[in-house]
Amino acid sequence: MRQNSDFSSEKHETFLPKLINASSDESADILYASGFHAPDEFLYFETADRKGIVVSPLEYSRACAEAKKGVEVIDRSDLMSQCGTERPFLPFFSKYLGVSKWCVPERFPLKTALELSREGIELVCAKSPFFPQRERKTAMEIAEIRKSVHATEEMMRCLHRMLSESKVNAQGYLELSGKIVTCDFLRAELEGNFKKMGYTASRTIIACGIQCAAPHNIGSGPVKAGEPVVADIFPRSDASGYWGDMTRTFLKGKAPKSVMRAYNAVKKASETAMSMIRAGVIAADVHIAAAETMAELGFQTGRGRDGMPCGFIHGLGHGVGLEIHEGPRVSPLNRKPLQSGNVISVEPGLYYPEWGGIRLEDLVVVTKDGYRNFNTMEKELEIP
Amino acid sequence: MRQNSDFSSEKHETFLPKLINASSDESADILYASGFHAPDEFLYFETADRKGIVVSPLEYSRACAEAKKGVEVIDRSDLMSQCGTERPFLPFFSKYLGVSKWCVPERFPLKTALELSREGIELVCAKSPFFPQRERKTAMEIAEIRKSVHATEEMMRCLHRMLSESKVNAQGYLELSGKIVTCDFLRAELEGNFKKMGYTASRTIIACGIQCAAPHNIGSGPVKAGEPVVADIFPRSDASGYWGDMTRTFLKGKAPKSVMRAYNAVKKASETAMSMIRAGVIAADVHIAAAETMAELGFQTGRGRDGMPCGFIHGLGHGVGLEIHEGPRVSPLNRKPLQSGNVISVEPGLYYPEWGGIRLEDLVVVTKDGYRNFNTMEKELEIP
Repeated sequence: MRQNSDFSSEKHETFLPKLINASSDESADILYASGFHAPDEFLYFETADRKGIVVSPLEYSRACAEAKKGVEVIDRSDLMSQCGTERPFLPFFSKYLGVSKWCVPERFPLKTALELSREGIELVCAKSPFFPQRERKTAMEIAEIRKSVHATEEMMRCLHRMLSESKVNAQGYLELSGKIVTCDFLRAELEGNFKKMGYTASRTIIACGIQCAAPHNIGSGPVKAGEPVVADIFPRSDASGYWGDMTRTFLKGKAPKSVMRAYNAVKKASETAMSMIRAGVIAADVHIAAAETMAELGFQTGRGRDGMPCGFIHGLGHGVGLEIHEGPRVSPLNRKPLQSGNVISVEPGLYYPEWGGIRLEDLVVVTKDGYRNFNTMEKELEIP
Repeated sequence: MRQNSDFSSEKHETFLPKLINASSDESADILYASGFHAPDEFLYFETADRKGIVVSPLEYSRACAEAKKGVEVIDRSDLMSQCGTERPFLPFFSKYLGVSKWCVPERFPLKTALELSREGIELVCAKSPFFPQRERKTAMEIAEIRKSVHATEEMMRCLHRMLSESKVNAQGYLELSGKIVTCDFLRAELEGNFKKMGYTASRTIIACGIQCAAPHNIGSGPVKAGEPVVADIFPRSDASGYWGDMTRTFLKGKAPKSVMRAYNAVKKASETAMSMIRAGVIAADVHIAAAETMAELGFQTGRGRDGMPCGFIHGLGHGVGLEIHEGPRVSPLNRKPLQSGNVISVEPGLYYPEWGGIRLEDLVVVTKDGYRNFNTMEKELEIP
C-alpha cells in the first residue's frame, strides 16, 4: 500500500482506476457513482474502459433496473465460482480486471486494504473529496434538492401552524387540543408526516428555551411561551437520496427584547452573507462577514462567564447533497472560492447559556453572479 | 501498520488498546461501546486503564449527558490547542495516551490508518466482530429488542387491518376508502406511523405478486387480490438504536393451491427450525433442516427454467441488535454453535419467478434449553 504523504503529486499522474467498497448508506460516493441504493456493502469500480458494480445475487435484478446508465452490473456469485470462497475476493477481482493500482476513498476499509496490499495491489488513498464534481451540482441534482427543500418548507409551515394554533395555559405552557405541546410530540408529528411524503427525517431538532444554547441538542419536554424554539429540519428523499436542510426560530407570544435583538442580528448576518455569495468569493470571507455583522450589533463570539463558548460558535454553512454535511464548508478554515453549482446552507446563529439560542438557515445554489435561494419562507420570530 | 495474516495469534497477546473512529450511524460498535449517538465522526478509545470518547465542542455537553457510565468524555478542542491544526490528530492523541499499538475494526478508515502508521503507531486489524460480546445480548438489550419487535407487530397488525378493510374492485385490485391500494401507500402509512412511535423504518418491503420473487424488492404499484403480499418490516428505535425485524406474507381472498402449498411448507420449515434452536446447536444445521423440510414437501432449491436461482435462496436467519444484519448468521456457511443470548431471525422463504414468493420471519433469543420468541402474531396467509 502506497503511503503517499503528498497527494498533490497525483495531479501529474495518468488516470488511476477507482474502487469503492461500501453500502450506499455509508458512502454517498458509491450512490453518486452507481445510482444504486443498497443497505449492504457492494463494489463500485472504474477503469479506463469499464465502470460497474458487483452485487450479491440477491440484489442483481434490482441493480440492473436501478443502476445509472453506463454502469455495468456484475453478479458476484458468477465470479465467486472462479475465485472460490477461500481467498479474499478483491485481490482476485483486481487481477481479473487487470488492475494493479487503485485509487480509493479516505474511508476505504483497512481490512480490505490489507488484503489487497498483501497480494501486491497498490492503493492510493484519494484526497477528499473522492468525486470532486460532487460539489458542483448538475441541473438534475439541483432539481432533486429543490424538491427536498420544498418538502422541508411544507413541514416548517406545519410546525408554524401547530405553534400558532396552540393556546398558552395558566403556567405559560403551550397546549394543543387540550394536551401540553412537547418538543418530542412536534418532532414525531413532523417526522411521521415526512415518511408519508417519501422522506426520512431523524434527530430533527425541535429545541426550546435554554436547550437552544447547544446547537445539536435535539430538544425535549414541554414548550413554554416567551422562549425561543429552534427548528432545524433536514429530511432525506427516500427516492433520490438528496437532503433538504432548513432552520427557523420561533417564539410563541411576545419576545423578550434581548431575544428579539439577537434574532434581528442573526437575520442581518444572513442577509450580509447572502449579499456576498457568488462564484469566486472566498468561503471564509462570507463566514467572517456574517460574524462581523453580529459583532457590530453587540453579539461577540467568545467564552461566557462559565468558560463555555458562546456567540456564533459554528461555521456559517456547509454543502448539502447526497450527504447532509459535505463540501464546500463555509467556515473560517476554508480559504477556497465558492464555485457555481455549489449548494450550501447559510445558517448564522447565536448561542447563550443564559437564555438559549437563535439559528436561521436557508439553502442556496451558487451561480456565476450570485445565488438562487431554494427557500421562500419568511423569517419571523414571534407567533401570536 | 501490521499486516497480520493470522489474526488468531491475537488470542495469545496481552490486552491491546482499542480504537474506533466513526459516526454512530456508520458503526454499531462505537454506539455499543460509548452509548453515544452522533451523526458526525467521533473517537472511541479503550486502554488498560481508561475508556472514553473524543467529541467536538458542539457535542460535548450532550455527550456528557448521554454517554454510558464509565466512559470519559473529552472535548476535542481542549487537545487541539496542544496538537495544532497542522498535523493529524490521531497520532498526537495516541502519544498523549501513551499508546503505540491499537486494535482497530475491519472498517477502520484507510486514511487515518496511514496517518498513524506514518508516525510509527502500529495497528492490528481485529477479526470481526470487534466486540464479540455484542452477539450475546444482555438483559437490557433483550428488553430493548423486545420493545422494537412489539412496535413491529403493532404495524404488522395495522397492515393486516388495512388489507382486511380493503374491498376488491371489478378489476381485482384492492381499494380502501375509494382509492386503489398500492405498495407505496402501505409502506408510507407504516413508516409514517413508526416515526410517530419513535422508530425509523426505511425501505420497508411491501411487495406483491411476482415482485415477491426477489427477496429485496421493496415493492411498488397496486395490490391485487389472489396474489401474495410479502411484508418485511424492520424499524429501528430512535432512542435505543435496537432493531426489530419481522416478515409475514398475506393474500387477499382465496389463495391458489400452489401458493398455499408453498406457504405451508415455509411455515413448516419455520417450525422445524424453531424446534432445533438452543445453545450449542450448529447454526448451519438449523438452516439445512429448514431447507430439507421444504424440499421434502416438494420445494427444491436450484435454478429455474431461465437459469435464475429459485426456491430457498437465502440464509435462514441473521443476528439482530444495533445492526439489522449482524452475527451470528444462520446459514450453511456458519458451522459454529449458537450461544445463549444470541438474538436471531428465523426466516425461511420460497421464491419462484412464475408467481412470486413467501417469507415468514420471527425473531427469537437463544437460551440454554431452547429459545424465546419475541413474536406473538399468528401466521395466516389468507385475509378474507
